[in-house]
Amino acid sequence: MKALKIPEATVQRLSIYSRFLERLDKKGVITVSSGEIARGVGVSPAQVRKDLAYFGEFGTRGVGYNVKDLIHYILKILGLTKSWPVVLVGAGNLGTALTAYKGFADRGFKIVGVFDNDLLKIGKRIQDLEVMPLEKIPAVVAEHDVKIGIIAVPIGAVQNIASILVDAGVEALLTFGPVVLDVPEHVVVRNVDLAVKLEILTFNLVFRDLQSVL
Amino acid sequence: MKALKIPEATVQRLSIYSRFLERLDKKGVITVSSGEIARGVGVSPAQVRKDLAYFGEFGTRGVGYNVKDLIHYILKILGLTKSWPVVLVGAGNLGTALTAYKGFADRGFKIVGVFDNDLLKIGKRIQDLEVMPLEKIPAVVAEHDVKIGIIAVPIGAVQNIASILVDAGVEALLTFGPVVLDVPEHVVVRNVDLAVKLEILTFNLVFRDLQSVL
Repeated sequence: MKALKIPEATVQRLSIYSRFLERLDKKGVITVSSGEIARGVGVSPAQVRKDLAYFGEFGTRGVGYNVKDLIHYILKILGLTKSWPVVLVGAGNLGTALTAYKGFADRGFKIVGVFDNDLLKIGKRIQDLEVMPLEKIPAVVAEHDVKIGIIAVPIGAVQNIASILVDAGVEALLTFGPVVLDVPEHVVVRNVDLAVKLEILTFNLVFRDLQSVL
Repeated sequence: MKALKIPEATVQRLSIYSRFLERLDKKGVITVSSGEIARGVGVSPAQVRKDLAYFGEFGTRGVGYNVKDLIHYILKILGLTKSWPVVLVGAGNLGTALTAYKGFADRGFKIVGVFDNDLLKIGKRIQDLEVMPLEKIPAVVAEHDVKIGIIAVPIGAVQNIASILVDAGVEALLTFGPVVLDVPEHVVVRNVDLAVKLEILTFNLVFRDLQSVL
């Protein structure tokens, strides 16, 4: 496969298309048009065609895309034809909510270890996992060959935890809240800032009479 | 102002630019170039210029943008020159984490009511808020003129809560997890699907040797 330069917004939409396509597949739908995908997920048909075009010629004019093939291809692009072990640091409210998050297992993400430095939390069970001290991170990461870490600790502790995870061999980090991390070049970091999501709401509330957002 | 058609990805980046600009402002920085913004937030300078160009001519060639002006303008676009009262439904782990989320107050979002239908939770205090029964939603929404609701309840209950909020007058909803809502046309819904964020990580892990993502 030749080197691709795919905008992150496209990657995010592919992830969303694949969920819609899986719902169609469960209903027994065999083929789908870009217009149907567009309506299903709320973007324009042109956007769907452009996003899928990053991966070469798909679909048959007038017939559309084969649903199963398209799902498989998108999952392959997203790296989801295998399952991914994940470690979670932080067993507070957010961490506890994340261990119960239904959306992870559906997509092949399995939390294999939960860690905290709070003696009151260590040893407690969350779902079917026992909270472990931070010292166990390297052993668990090595044992399961974990590449992905989720950091759900107070803002002030995030950088320290990131460094521990990276030293243990984790190469991709998901963080929460307004943090800026200093990590080596090879480490992928993405952040969930929930205020950004609220700002998309306020933008739409303020501007919806003036425009239609893509 | 003429009708704008701004891609949602741009809105999201504006939100992120404004955070970076606020950090610069705190350091006493007066002007900034698109290149500096780009490096600060990890996108290309062309992307920054394109995003800001949606709002007409800004900045002075060779001098750059005035930091304070740019912050003010972006906040105005995002609807953040006022503060927004928010109601939160669901006082479980996720809801509790959200009430403590530092990023909201910084951006003018104030949670004015937390609701749950669990008798064991009603009456408990989370931060400085007492958890109220769902029946109180209409009164609180009316009293504070709330337009934004955050839904942090189990997937199966999300649609019902959305309907209650919309009936009470809420016009923008933030949901979590893989849900699809049926709400009236005028209601703005955005969803945080944390698995999508993990998929952006796996995409990058799988493809980073083959390409550089924007």
